[in-house]
Amino acid sequence: MAARRGRAIRVPSGSLIRIINIHGKQVVDTWALNARDTAEHLSMEHTRASLCKVVPQRGDTLVTNRRRPILSLEEDTSPGAHDTLIAACDRYRYEQLGVVGYHDNCADNFTAALRELGVASVPPPAPLNLFMNVPIRPDGQVEFRSPLSEAGQLVGLRLHMDAILVFSACPQDLLPVNGEGMTPSEVKLMIELSADVAR
Amino acid sequence: MAARRGRAIRVPSGSLIRIINIHGKQVVDTWALNARDTAEHLSMEHTRASLCKVVPQRGDTLVTNRRRPILSLEEDTSPGAHDTLIAACDRYRYEQLGVVGYHDNCADNFTAALRELGVASVPPPAPLNLFMNVPIRPDGQVEFRSPLSEAGQLVGLRLHMDAILVFSACPQDLLPVNGEGMTPSEVKLMIELSADVAR
Repeated sequence: MAARRGRAIRVPSGSLIRIINIHGKQVVDTWALNARDTAEHLSMEHTRASLCKVVPQRGDTLVTNRRRPILSLEEDTSPGAHDTLIAACDRYRYEQLGVVGYHDNCADNFTAALRELGVASVPPPAPLNLFMNVPIRPDGQVEFRSPLSEAGQLVGLRLHMDAILVFSACPQDLLPVNGEGMTPSEVKLMIELSADVAR
Repeated sequence: MAARRGRAIRVPSGSLIRIINIHGKQVVDTWALNARDTAEHLSMEHTRASLCKVVPQRGDTLVTNRRRPILSLEEDTSPGAHDTLIAACDRYRYEQLGVVGYHDNCADNFTAALRELGVASVPPPAPLNLFMNVPIRPDGQVEFRSPLSEAGQLVGLRLHMDAILVFSACPQDLLPVNGEGMTPSEVKLMIELSADVAR
């Protein structure tokens, strides 16, 4: 997936998709919609309630807004700093950061990626921000820090329903969200289809 | 507002609405929609990003999914334990808790309250859970604890746009979300209309 861009993919239940952080510091906003009914989607607020955790860890199963399992965080070779608290960046965010004119953003990437796949537009749910490092201080303040992941580290997601996965290589280049160099980069997506499908 | 029930109200910009925790331990799920376009709503994930805080505090301004101010937490006589992490309870939640048959829930209260006001249904956004006590441990685990608020304590919300406010007196009676007695109770809502409107 190119730097600053999004991608939507139909993935059958049982498949494993790996998101490989080639350069190490790239945040990947991640969404999953039920392929049969896009009103059902991976939900951060339902997942936090289900796991009793702010951030899912390796082995955890994430749920939809109907509290059904949609995917598991089966592999994670990174230190495990991911984010569930922060909205996808959008044009309003960059306007507030003082950008004049258009700036690529994860919300528009979500919409464009779905359109490319021929899927009717839905508002972007709160994303699972893979590799995004947003520590919570004891006083409840959160900070936007450079990712802890290193080049080549990856996350593997196992699908529990037929889903439309949407990814956005976050184009944030005004804050160290994507590393101190503030240089958005590409990431690699690899899909291992479920045996059922491959047969 | 009766125990276990919801209520939706149109409130003009500038108004102050007080949510009074008569019995002290009642959680109030709270939503706010732009009265002119209900696709714009109070958003927990955008508010956390805007405030760099998990939980808004007295004086903080909360924003919509278009990152515009919609209301401020102008008054808070409680110890300030509120929640932005946890989804509204819904029928799926009570099914998973083993309830057989229908159980009142905040998601249905949201929908019913909007219907009563004649507003077209929208999916419930992540709520602002007033008085809900969900501490985050240093390891990122969250716990559902009894509220820290006491009888008569209140929150006052100042509106920054014409809004539809929706409240639900959470009917959770299987976990100590609404106090160790697990007895949902009524809360009092008081609206002080803005001077502009009252004139």
